[in-house]
Amino acid sequence: MHTQSDFDPLRDVQAGGGPGMRSFIYGHLAPESFPIAELLAACQYSLREEGSLALQYGPEQGYGPLIDYLRAKIERDEGLSLGRQHLTITAGCAGALDAIARLFTHPGDAVLVEAPTYTDTLHIFRDHHLRLFQVPVDEEGLIVESAAQRLEELRRAGERPLFLYTIANFQNPTGVTLSVERRKQLIDLARAHELRIIEDDVYRDLCYEGDVPPSLFALDESRETVIRVGSFSKILAPGLRLGWVTAAPQVIERLAHCGLRSMGGGANPFASHVVANFCERGLLEPHIARLREIYRARRDAALTALAHSMPPGVTWTHPRGGFFIWLTLPAPLLARQVIAAAEQRGVTCLPGDIFFAERGGERNLRLAFSYLPPDDISQGIAALGDAIRASL
Amino acid sequence: MHTQSDFDPLRDVQAGGGPGMRSFIYGHLAPESFPIAELLAACQYSLREEGSLALQYGPEQGYGPLIDYLRAKIERDEGLSLGRQHLTITAGCAGALDAIARLFTHPGDAVLVEAPTYTDTLHIFRDHHLRLFQVPVDEEGLIVESAAQRLEELRRAGERPLFLYTIANFQNPTGVTLSVERRKQLIDLARAHELRIIEDDVYRDLCYEGDVPPSLFALDESRETVIRVGSFSKILAPGLRLGWVTAAPQVIERLAHCGLRSMGGGANPFASHVVANFCERGLLEPHIARLREIYRARRDAALTALAHSMPPGVTWTHPRGGFFIWLTLPAPLLARQVIAAAEQRGVTCLPGDIFFAERGGERNLRLAFSYLPPDDISQGIAALGDAIRASL
Repeated sequence: MHTQSDFDPLRDVQAGGGPGMRSFIYGHLAPESFPIAELLAACQYSLREEGSLALQYGPEQGYGPLIDYLRAKIERDEGLSLGRQHLTITAGCAGALDAIARLFTHPGDAVLVEAPTYTDTLHIFRDHHLRLFQVPVDEEGLIVESAAQRLEELRRAGERPLFLYTIANFQNPTGVTLSVERRKQLIDLARAHELRIIEDDVYRDLCYEGDVPPSLFALDESRETVIRVGSFSKILAPGLRLGWVTAAPQVIERLAHCGLRSMGGGANPFASHVVANFCERGLLEPHIARLREIYRARRDAALTALAHSMPPGVTWTHPRGGFFIWLTLPAPLLARQVIAAAEQRGVTCLPGDIFFAERGGERNLRLAFSYLPPDDISQGIAALGDAIRASL
Repeated sequence: MHTQSDFDPLRDVQAGGGPGMRSFIYGHLAPESFPIAELLAACQYSLREEGSLALQYGPEQGYGPLIDYLRAKIERDEGLSLGRQHLTITAGCAGALDAIARLFTHPGDAVLVEAPTYTDTLHIFRDHHLRLFQVPVDEEGLIVESAAQRLEELRRAGERPLFLYTIANFQNPTGVTLSVERRKQLIDLARAHELRIIEDDVYRDLCYEGDVPPSLFALDESRETVIRVGSFSKILAPGLRLGWVTAAPQVIERLAHCGLRSMGGGANPFASHVVANFCERGLLEPHIARLREIYRARRDAALTALAHSMPPGVTWTHPRGGFFIWLTLPAPLLARQVIAAAEQRGVTCLPGDIFFAERGGERNLRLAFSYLPPDDISQGIAALGDAIRASL
């Protein structure tokens, strides 16, 4: 339950904790990363030169120049040549996932999700009354063999899942990345079971070490199996509420021409004009390069502090990108007890259990390292280490 | 079906017709009405002074200062004193209606709608697999007696509608306004049948003659029966995608804390900051006054041209506000035939049948008078009159 404090304009600054609390709760962006002057210039252009279009109802599929920029970006980054019929602009990743659930599922439909996975996706799927079945994740991402077993078990029980939802790169909440070998196996498995994959790929550009594997969408040459979701929320600004979907033309057609888009004139026309102008001026690429530096430094600060501060028995993931590290506490420690002790020491994070559709996570913590500066990360993790030691 | 022309940045200028076509299709805003300089100043303030909040994830219920501005506006305009728990910010009216369908209905649920009603609402409700039953509208709005009859018939058939959707002021597509007497009867009827009313009130501020009746939401002193939707799309700019809902606290709570809002950080944080700043500087009230002048002149031009140009037997509504006039053609004329003839004369509008959930409208045309300047309205309606005469 949320209270009046929801309205506090400082809420974002607090990022989930009270004043003076070092919070690893939210995967919020580094506040100093926002390109204020450049976005203001893009607002000026969009209003002065294009105001009568940017402020009006827009095309349902999205603003054409933004679609074309994204097609060029995907061709450059992934070597994929997509037509306009393969891409639509959405109101963020959230708008995309909600639309997929609204237009391609019915209440009671079965969906496979990773264990653990992004808690807000579970929330969206539950709002659509989907039944969620979990498949475990290890250091190489979703365990495809476990997915195959779960599908067989479900089939024997008369269940036939429609979708599998995965964050293949720098997963939320674990930070792990699905290996290329498993990606290929997963596509084969999905085809064999007529299962469609929803690939949440919002962290693709935030790789701090090595290369990003090809997306499931790129590996699915048929273009029939994977619906891939991207977003400007992690690489520019979540407050603009802009994302996109790449998928088969019939999926794009359905997403673009639903009632919500028809009434609204597409997803966020004004923000689309602003972001298209920002991108067309070549500003997104150097901005992403800068974000990689900012977040790499934060990840490194977090990993160094963990190595320095954690008592024996605590383990954690080593993400090559994204915003999150996943801690596992030794028995008999419980995450919620440790968080209570940590909050007394001025530091907080999320307990692992909220990231599971069925069960699990009682000994896990998610640390979001995106929001706090490196010094706060180091001191916060030191305090967390003290809290864990005190709980042992 | 939409085609590549969806991407044409001129699409909005064309407003549904090709180049050179006078289009009465869309209820788009007068392009010259957008307050470009003032919105740019609001963008500057929001980015320079509040950028790290405006660009970040925001509170789920919406940006507090915008909620408070709307509470003050509603108190001033309607004499209603609402707490923060009675209001939430949405991604336009579209986002509000979609959320109501997502969170408060299941596929197959029965909903009553006006005949005719806004076609995009029918589209949203159909995307949620709702079953729609229509109730006729006359010059005084929804015929409450017919709603009572329909409810009785449905009850005998084992159906119990959950919601009734109405646009009580300056209805889309007819332009008619529900009388105060009928508003009271409708609330009594809804209570008796445990039916909730969705009141789409987006044209409330655009009254050109006389007073706006009290909203169903205001008349429902229990606050339990009516969910009222408002929007900045008609009084400022649809491209910003901002609206709001006023309702009982438990409805607001459910809307605010759904998965979509949780993942997205509320509905359009950046646009919320921009619009809050615009409104806090006292700019919305004079802007609405200016819009009333612009649209009153367009309505008057349309009514004058209709009186001058229509052959005998054609009738039309006389809206006191909003964007739409509803024409009825004499038998044996059919709307789609007349539109084909009109398009040959360089003018177009929408056929009535698309505004009916079940059946009707074959002899009706909807004219949106909001988008074209008065001279184009006069000439367009003269051409439409020629087309009707040629079809007789």
